[in-house]
Amino acid sequence: MPFTYTRTIHFSDTDAAGVVYFANILSICHEAYEESLGTSGIKLKAFFTNSDVALPIVHASVDFFRPLFCGDQVIISLMPQKIGVDKFEINYELFLADILIAKAITRHVCIDASSRSKQELSPEIIQWLNSYRKETEEVERRKAREVI
Amino acid sequence: MPFTYTRTIHFSDTDAAGVVYFANILSICHEAYEESLGTSGIKLKAFFTNSDVALPIVHASVDFFRPLFCGDQVIISLMPQKIGVDKFEINYELFLADILIAKAITRHVCIDASSRSKQELSPEIIQWLNSYRKETEEVERRKAREVI
Amino acid sequence: MPFTYTRTIHFSDTDAAGVVYFANILSICHEAYEESLGTSGIKLKAFFTNSDVALPIVHASVDFFRPLFCGDQVIISLMPQKIGVDKFEINYELFLADILIAKAITRHVCIDASSRSKQELSPEIIQWLNSYRKETEEVERRKAREVI
Amino acid sequence: MPFTYTRTIHFSDTDAAGVVYFANILSICHEAYEESLGTSGIKLKAFFTNSDVALPIVHASVDFFRPLFCGDQVIISLMPQKIGVDKFEINYELFLADILIAKAITRHVCIDASSRSKQELSPEIIQWLNSYRKETEEVERRKAREVI
Repeated sequence: MPFTYTRTIHFSDTDAAGVVYFANILSICHEAYEESLGTSGIKLKAFFTNSDVALPIVHASVDFFRPLFCGDQVIISLMPQKIGVDKFEINYELFLADILIAKAITRHVCIDASSRSKQELSPEIIQWLNSYRKETEEVERRKAREVI
Repeated sequence: MPFTYTRTIHFSDTDAAGVVYFANILSICHEAYEESLGTSGIKLKAFFTNSDVALPIVHASVDFFRPLFCGDQVIISLMPQKIGVDKFEINYELFLADILIAKAITRHVCIDASSRSKQELSPEIIQWLNSYRKETEEVERRKAREVI
Repeated sequence: MPFTYTRTIHFSDTDAAGVVYFANILSICHEAYEESLGTSGIKLKAFFTNSDVALPIVHASVDFFRPLFCGDQVIISLMPQKIGVDKFEINYELFLADILIAKAITRHVCIDASSRSKQELSPEIIQWLNSYRKETEEVERRKAREVI
Repeated sequence: MPFTYTRTIHFSDTDAAGVVYFANILSICHEAYEESLGTSGIKLKAFFTNSDVALPIVHASVDFFRPLFCGDQVIISLMPQKIGVDKFEINYELFLADILIAKAITRHVCIDASSRSKQELSPEIIQWLNSYRKETEEVERRKAREVI
């Protein structure tokens, strides 16, 4: 099951076209990622501030279907997936009520913060990823049984 | 009684010094103001996007006592006050648990959005201001009685 | 020939990991796009503020190869291309000296700002696109002659 | 003589009211401060990223006289002043052509980055401050002579 994060659109998110500035959609997705890590028990201050290990984003993409306005209540649905010993990808879907507003992807690689060389994902990140994997597999197993 | 708004510090709020970038504290205060307007029944999209009347900030100040880090849960306590037929001021106090982190002020003037000439505050803003005034006066009346 | 825009990395672009926050790379690309429009004679205030026609971004993607730090002098090389009567795409390459730091794409669709229905690209945008096309074609023609 | 920094207003600086978002004016002032430090020979990456010493802002204030729009060319005039062994203040004036748009102040205190205890200003900052002081004093001396 994906993680969901609800977020009110702030005035500071908008631009002179009256809607959310395009790059801010990715910031809102990152907030959902942070919230999901926090919910999994990861201490965000240590994780994002003075960690030996960093998880920089190496790729991001976003598709916009509808504009968002100040005061809108967006629901961000997030699903991470391990794609290597040292990387994972997160898929995001943004909704207003049940209308799909935008879809986004961020791809993260684990590196040593000082040398910037690749590192295996840390146990806490593996655990965070697994918490979604188990649920995904269970959903697929249930679907398979229903088919049978 | 002041309005309170709780806000998690996001990674995007921080800078390379590892703490919240100074100007972002004012954005977080503005979020609290938006939330307070919304709670009072004001439709934020219409209010901030295509309104005939605007309430630009003509003065802002902020004092920083302690740094804020990613993941911190800040409580913003906000108290608005009418200071003229066409202006009001908001006082903000930011806390981490019960530790005062920062204090800020924003002063707003009501103008016609196209001509930018001064306007009397709209009934919905007066009502929003009054909802805090009554409570403030009541607190003061109670204090006065206690003194007697 | 692509348009180039040089930009110093500001402290406000960075995050607690000490480098430019990922979504801000797209904002820097958008600045280059604005500068390119301005150079073509388009009045940015009218274009971005109270226009009947808007050019919202419907897709953006970015690949990050190296981090950027406060004070870095980034060169953004930008090349727009018409991809339909109502849309165009911009390719961006970000360099530090001659090292490729990031690549990005934004795709823009022309709409009526109030109805949000699709519109043909305006003459000023066509002219801006053509100014790059002519140069691109000339480069290709020269290459063809050299081959012969 | 104050330091001057010219800055085009970007689309990302604006909000749904069509003008620069209030808190972003302070970010633009900070850019001018960074540029002034860079011009003085200070390496910004080391200064803002992995320094033992930090210069956090403990107070900021800003007065807004006129709105700024996307594409506007703002001139920021900056004048720093030492106000103690461990602190300094910067005064900013923002102009559009010769029209005063906003005034701002930031007050900075020198601290040890890890313990966050107060520190004397570093020699490089003293030198940066002095470069403005000498000029200010000279201007005053000249004025005094003219009076005589």
